[in-house]
Amino acid sequence: MRYVRFAHAEGEGWGRLEGGSVIELSAAAYCGGTATGREYALGEVRLLAPLLPSKVVCVGLNYRDHAEELNMPLPEEPTLFLKPPSAVIGPGQAIEYPAMSRQVDYEAELAVVIGHRLRGADEHEAAEAIFGYCCANDVTARDLQRRDGQWTRAKSFDTFCPLGPWIETAVRADDLAIRAVVNGNVRQSSRTSMMVWSPSQLVSFVSRIMTLLPGDVILTGTPYGVGQLYPGDEVIVEIEGIGRLRNRVEPAR
Amino acid sequence: MRYVRFAHAEGEGWGRLEGGSVIELSAAAYCGGTATGREYALGEVRLLAPLLPSKVVCVGLNYRDHAEELNMPLPEEPTLFLKPPSAVIGPGQAIEYPAMSRQVDYEAELAVVIGHRLRGADEHEAAEAIFGYCCANDVTARDLQRRDGQWTRAKSFDTFCPLGPWIETAVRADDLAIRAVVNGNVRQSSRTSMMVWSPSQLVSFVSRIMTLLPGDVILTGTPYGVGQLYPGDEVIVEIEGIGRLRNRVEPAR
Repeated sequence: MRYVRFAHAEGEGWGRLEGGSVIELSAAAYCGGTATGREYALGEVRLLAPLLPSKVVCVGLNYRDHAEELNMPLPEEPTLFLKPPSAVIGPGQAIEYPAMSRQVDYEAELAVVIGHRLRGADEHEAAEAIFGYCCANDVTARDLQRRDGQWTRAKSFDTFCPLGPWIETAVRADDLAIRAVVNGNVRQSSRTSMMVWSPSQLVSFVSRIMTLLPGDVILTGTPYGVGQLYPGDEVIVEIEGIGRLRNRVEPAR
Repeated sequence: MRYVRFAHAEGEGWGRLEGGSVIELSAAAYCGGTATGREYALGEVRLLAPLLPSKVVCVGLNYRDHAEELNMPLPEEPTLFLKPPSAVIGPGQAIEYPAMSRQVDYEAELAVVIGHRLRGADEHEAAEAIFGYCCANDVTARDLQRRDGQWTRAKSFDTFCPLGPWIETAVRADDLAIRAVVNGNVRQSSRTSMMVWSPSQLVSFVSRIMTLLPGDVILTGTPYGVGQLYPGDEVIVEIEGIGRLRNRVEPAR
């Protein structure tokens, strides 16, 4: 099943995709939303980020090929950082190139959406708590990441967390093709089987640090091939069995 | 004025302190809440964290005496990190000592509460957007901070962000005494005039990275004298003109 959030002429809503239609739901599906009886043609609505997370937890260096690319040893435990909810945008929304940076990179990532409150979970409980998956772009001001040492500023600018285009619940995430495509050129191409820690291992690890809530999202790291974006570029994160998340890069307002 | 959030027999509410009474408000004061007409005796309620932030932005190394203590040069720009909202607790709630750590430290900090949406603000606009101040304890698993390099895990455990006891709006924050007291012994004692970047400079800087929303909070760094906490300890963060934030340390559940 594919779950969305969307804007229409009268406001915003949650929904489920069926063919070319959006079946409106009373709330996010991960919060138990049910059909309201209203329905929209897909062409009538604009898709938004498919969730409203209380937190966005990200993992560094989780693909063997990316760690080799950076010539960095694999850490013994996942390295975590957070993006603020204010960084989240949806499919089709613009990534704004911030005035503070001269090097903004794309990072294609698989995002794990949490379905229920979770604390101190083992791997089995963690797997049960995964509601679904979406595509994510962990946009990063690489120059500021290097300068600060801490990654937070570099990862936290408004618009630096595109998510979407929907949450796919009917997919197994252990061996999916994942790609970043910039202006039609494939720049990253790997498989989720290259991950060091699986989605359920990551969810378990994070849940032993912080309580996860429905709609929280965990970005599972990026594969080999990160590189720069420039104003005017179109970047697509594409994950097999999930979909394509497309965003354009614009100069800062 | 002092603004609180509180629990009472029938639920939770927002309020304003007047003498020994809590005047209930329809919403957080920073969201324009107005008096509902209900009133509680202070003894009837339990104070909660006085805000529900969408993000908790923290600043490293913002006191000259603390940078000297760590033998670290002052960075040229503020170093930012985030704590998740799930780490926030209120006055009197327990700090849980996590199973993953063997060294949990207190860090007394002045917290700045944002009053309205802010993006790309200069220092004057930033000052106007400050709703008030409260005490904060930036609890930190120092061993994990050293091990990870990134500070996020060390700072993000549930209960690692005590805030309170209330938001004080009638105070100038430029030269206040700030102390940490553990089991009755003063462990940190400095003044906010030792800050490298003032609250309004920090709010301006953060607003040029991420949009700040009402109720968001910025922790402004800790002075000289950080040290360890152990289960059973009582830690108080005390800031002149604001109040005392008291929490006990308990073993992890």
